[in-house]
Amino acid sequence: MSTAATKSAPIDFYFDFISPFGYFASLRIDALAARHGREVEWHSMLLGVSVLKVMGSKPLLSVPLKGDYLRRDVARYKRRHGLVLARKSDDPMMDSRWCGRAFHWVKAHLPGREKALARALYHAYWVEGRDLGTPQAAAAAAAAAGFDAALLEEEIRSDDTGRLLRSAVEESMKRGVFGSPTFVVDGELFWGVDTLPTVEDWLTRGGW
Amino acid sequence: MSTAATKSAPIDFYFDFISPFGYFASLRIDALAARHGREVEWHSMLLGVSVLKVMGSKPLLSVPLKGDYLRRDVARYKRRHGLVLARKSDDPMMDSRWCGRAFHWVKAHLPGREKALARALYHAYWVEGRDLGTPQAAAAAAAAAGFDAALLEEEIRSDDTGRLLRSAVEESMKRGVFGSPTFVVDGELFWGVDTLPTVEDWLTRGGW
Repeated sequence: MSTAATKSAPIDFYFDFISPFGYFASLRIDALAARHGREVEWHSMLLGVSVLKVMGSKPLLSVPLKGDYLRRDVARYKRRHGLVLARKSDDPMMDSRWCGRAFHWVKAHLPGREKALARALYHAYWVEGRDLGTPQAAAAAAAAAGFDAALLEEEIRSDDTGRLLRSAVEESMKRGVFGSPTFVVDGELFWGVDTLPTVEDWLTRGGW
Repeated sequence: MSTAATKSAPIDFYFDFISPFGYFASLRIDALAARHGREVEWHSMLLGVSVLKVMGSKPLLSVPLKGDYLRRDVARYKRRHGLVLARKSDDPMMDSRWCGRAFHWVKAHLPGREKALARALYHAYWVEGRDLGTPQAAAAAAAAAGFDAALLEEEIRSDDTGRLLRSAVEESMKRGVFGSPTFVVDGELFWGVDTLPTVEDWLTRGGW
């Protein structure tokens, strides 16, 4: 059902830095796509805007029943995939805006390096358990991937970078993205790390 | 990590009759369990109680962004699995209380026949697109699976049957169930039809 041109289109991967399942997906999506000859374009978004403001929901971990489920699901996922994370589900969540700004600044000004940046931030936040909720902390974590922390900190404080992130978040919602991770493949949205086998089936069969 | 006794314990399958993904799961869960030597016990619940009252959420299809996603996800699932359903995502939802009462009455009084009843109700609602939102309609749909419609209609109108359903729904929430479908395997909850490959992996590996 797809043309050859559509089939080789990149997969879009949407995530928030505060999302454990976004982090888990970041460890798998490029390898999965590569098995099917696809590239992946990464997009950071903000659950605080899509979930809280647009959908009118509460933060997931504070929803009765669902919060407990998600804690167990995260713990189980870590065991299944052998991940050891310093950050725990109930640790205070950072304001992920500064990581989002850093990501979109790098994507706009150092294109091709945004995945290295995202991986460094995800690693610092989840594996090392560092709080990246300030411009200084986000920029310092980026230094591990070879970015100039002083320059990055200055850039992510700027209104221009704030506008870059805001426009990316709006763009993600226009596309229908509301959760992290979301994969867009051939115009189809797949939400949640649990959909990765479904995404793989889609790529194997060339759509259904 | 499980003892032999735990491994042979049945899988619990929780669903609401109004849930398309509950219906989809009902078509697969017994075969999946059988591949691993497991039985499945079915439990109907009411999303209207768990989602709306306890979790404080809106009906999923009316949540901005997520509602649109779910419509597309249902359409895609049907294509992938070759399902043809008369009922559409935007058709008015029935009050699934009467189906739930019928299910729990049969489970209590004709044990072993509750899956046949549930399959008949699911088929009438989703495949044939019939509304089962009254005692009469639910009982009439049960007749297709050999149940005595007149007797069943009388029984599901009774306060005793109402209490049966209420207590089953409370029990499901005590167990942490909030969505349809939910599978409970060896004390672990798995929510959503997308988790079936994960459930299968759990059963194959005997836990993680």
